[in-house]
Amino acid sequence: MKNIDLIIYARWVVPVRPREEVLENMGVVVNKGKIVCLLPRQECERCYTAGEVVERPHGVLIPGLINAHTHASMSLLRGYADDLPLMKWLSEYIWPAEAKWVDERFVEFGAELAILEMIKGGTTCFNDMYFFPDVVARVAKNSGIRASVGMIVIDFPTVWAQNSDEYLDKGMAVHDAYRHESRISTTFAPHAPYTVSDAPLERIRMFADELDVQIHMHMHETEHEVEESLAQYGVRPLERLDRLGLLTPRLQAIHLTQLLPGEIETLAGRGVHAVHCPQSNMKLASGVSPVSAMREAGIPLAIGTDGASSNNDLDMFGEMQSAALMAKHDTLNAEALPAFDALEAATLGGARALAIDSITGSIEPGKAADLVCVDLKQAASWPVYHPVAQLVYAVARDQVGDVWVEGECLLKEGLPCKMNEDYILDAAQEIASRIAAGE
Amino acid sequence: MKNIDLIIYARWVVPVRPREEVLENMGVVVNKGKIVCLLPRQECERCYTAGEVVERPHGVLIPGLINAHTHASMSLLRGYADDLPLMKWLSEYIWPAEAKWVDERFVEFGAELAILEMIKGGTTCFNDMYFFPDVVARVAKNSGIRASVGMIVIDFPTVWAQNSDEYLDKGMAVHDAYRHESRISTTFAPHAPYTVSDAPLERIRMFADELDVQIHMHMHETEHEVEESLAQYGVRPLERLDRLGLLTPRLQAIHLTQLLPGEIETLAGRGVHAVHCPQSNMKLASGVSPVSAMREAGIPLAIGTDGASSNNDLDMFGEMQSAALMAKHDTLNAEALPAFDALEAATLGGARALAIDSITGSIEPGKAADLVCVDLKQAASWPVYHPVAQLVYAVARDQVGDVWVEGECLLKEGLPCKMNEDYILDAAQEIASRIAAGE
Repeated sequence: MKNIDLIIYARWVVPVRPREEVLENMGVVVNKGKIVCLLPRQECERCYTAGEVVERPHGVLIPGLINAHTHASMSLLRGYADDLPLMKWLSEYIWPAEAKWVDERFVEFGAELAILEMIKGGTTCFNDMYFFPDVVARVAKNSGIRASVGMIVIDFPTVWAQNSDEYLDKGMAVHDAYRHESRISTTFAPHAPYTVSDAPLERIRMFADELDVQIHMHMHETEHEVEESLAQYGVRPLERLDRLGLLTPRLQAIHLTQLLPGEIETLAGRGVHAVHCPQSNMKLASGVSPVSAMREAGIPLAIGTDGASSNNDLDMFGEMQSAALMAKHDTLNAEALPAFDALEAATLGGARALAIDSITGSIEPGKAADLVCVDLKQAASWPVYHPVAQLVYAVARDQVGDVWVEGECLLKEGLPCKMNEDYILDAAQEIASRIAAGE
Repeated sequence: MKNIDLIIYARWVVPVRPREEVLENMGVVVNKGKIVCLLPRQECERCYTAGEVVERPHGVLIPGLINAHTHASMSLLRGYADDLPLMKWLSEYIWPAEAKWVDERFVEFGAELAILEMIKGGTTCFNDMYFFPDVVARVAKNSGIRASVGMIVIDFPTVWAQNSDEYLDKGMAVHDAYRHESRISTTFAPHAPYTVSDAPLERIRMFADELDVQIHMHMHETEHEVEESLAQYGVRPLERLDRLGLLTPRLQAIHLTQLLPGEIETLAGRGVHAVHCPQSNMKLASGVSPVSAMREAGIPLAIGTDGASSNNDLDMFGEMQSAALMAKHDTLNAEALPAFDALEAATLGGARALAIDSITGSIEPGKAADLVCVDLKQAASWPVYHPVAQLVYAVARDQVGDVWVEGECLLKEGLPCKMNEDYILDAAQEIASRIAAGE
């Protein structure tokens, strides 16, 4: 008998790798933050004594969901401006509000609120792009969630930095401060082709190679962006980035709603990761991201919620469902993006985009115990024929019961273990009330 | 001081009529199942003593949601077959399973499960089409929910009836048995143009006028349906139904994913109700329902989930969100179907389609107290700028705390008052397990 930290017995385990596998009545053995093995119950009981045994007779255990694109602190602007097109929404509402209101405190409480929401909804890792990444990294670290924090770069001055040198310097200081943290990583996050000029993009490409980090960037989100690039640079944004050497497996290309067939081939050839944000694309009427065609071309797919002010939640269950439904709708093919593929994009696909798939994204021995248990025995997701179909087409976020990151329990039977929910919600409303009053 | 049954004090009240109104800190006064008035708290306290006072300091009170198209008992086939196109899904999976498995017990427990799910999700009324409407009506009556039960008619024999005469006779017996029940109404439910021939449709039109009931019918759901009609009848289904005199304000036209501009004009001119099922249309890749164009033409809009096996839940919050997002996506116009309009379609629009808008669908004095209170103070829907945006873009079904129908409490702080949840879930799984085993 070997003594280990934790055994989780769930009715079903969907490890994501091997593909489409559904295990029943298995134990997942966890020790020192890592998955040791998956074994039938009898074998588990014969081989291990555990510090904690968790029994979930109606639960399905999955790898933690990875939200591959968000702006966590924008949770404080949830519902601030809706039913508007992207450029009007950005330039008349969001950017002025951010200019007036975003400071360290805003980012801190916005990140707290977003992380609380994500943990409660089964997200164990998020890929962030926002101002004050130092604050986001600190809040994430304290919460226990895994995060990839964007070193944002944008041509114009903001409360975070005045010019691209300062953005890069301050970003790299965050990278340096957190480079030994197992759960916090950093990416370069040049905002978008239309907000970052060539010189900083070239520096980012060089630094990304030197530091071995990913690059997180909005790309081909709107027709307007493409037109503007044609006018300013004479080429579409994708071609411009290709000339700058940015189309590599380091690139997380967010949105991709405006793609020509040849551009799909280029992205596939370069190994770029596509991050699909279906609800945000629908809400802002940004266009159709050709998810099925991208997958057929071999482009790896991840899923993100985008920020809460264009969604308006950070719910990866809703996002998986929307991705699976929208792919069918857009192609008029009901077989497009089947349930398993949506789940894979929301787990292992995200890990690959973040270049952390050697440590998370599936339930495999040796990987970190980033695990989520979902209770299927509720009226809206019962009875069960295929647990994966339930996860994508019927489960809602509140059915997440338990969440572990590196084996640390962050949510137990629906209750946060480390975060003070009342305090966070009250602080969020206090900030929002001041914003609403225009104080 | 007048003594009445119930006062509900919610932080916000969205009565739906007047349009876009959001009331704060009001009391909704209920007596003998009806809404008496909406008054500021102080006035309420001065004028009324109540048998029960409900305080919801973070709640938004809305009219109960109306699911304008479902097949309740198909909840037992939730997740039975997914990621398939409509005709393959129907003819190779659903119809054979129904032929083998549907009996009174299936319909009874399927309806129990569906009604439990709907009540927990804030739906106070559903418009059903399925076999054994007598069983559905009985289960609905016992549960306390409001229901419109379809007197199904289909050309081919099923376990419910052998021919159109028998369908009509058995349906009308249900109508007769429930005609004095305030919460149960009936509609004629000819399945679809491709499954019901002219003679029964002509009889249905005549009987509907005589009995003064609505007609509930799938219509222009797929391109295949339109092509088949052209081949068989020489005209598109809509024109055929128009010639048969069925295009009137009695008609609830479900789906409408295949419409020519002239057909939109025809539907508007005839006063037909459109029932939009966005998630089902996406999942089955049925096509684009031109919701914005229909609304501009003046066609009244309702929203339905369709059955749980093509959705896969009966969640009207998810459906409102999908309707609002999909309308923007399909038109590339982020202002299409704004949040309030989605909420209106899911409440008053449903009541109009069911011809019960004089008694429900909005919070107005004299209407039935069909009310739902939603808790907004949860991480995913907080802070609040505009409660209606939260309801459509951020709330999930589990935030429904309280549900009343005709003033009777069916859900209190998330717990069903009249239904035995464990018993229903266990019975559902027992039936599903036999189906999965092919016994």
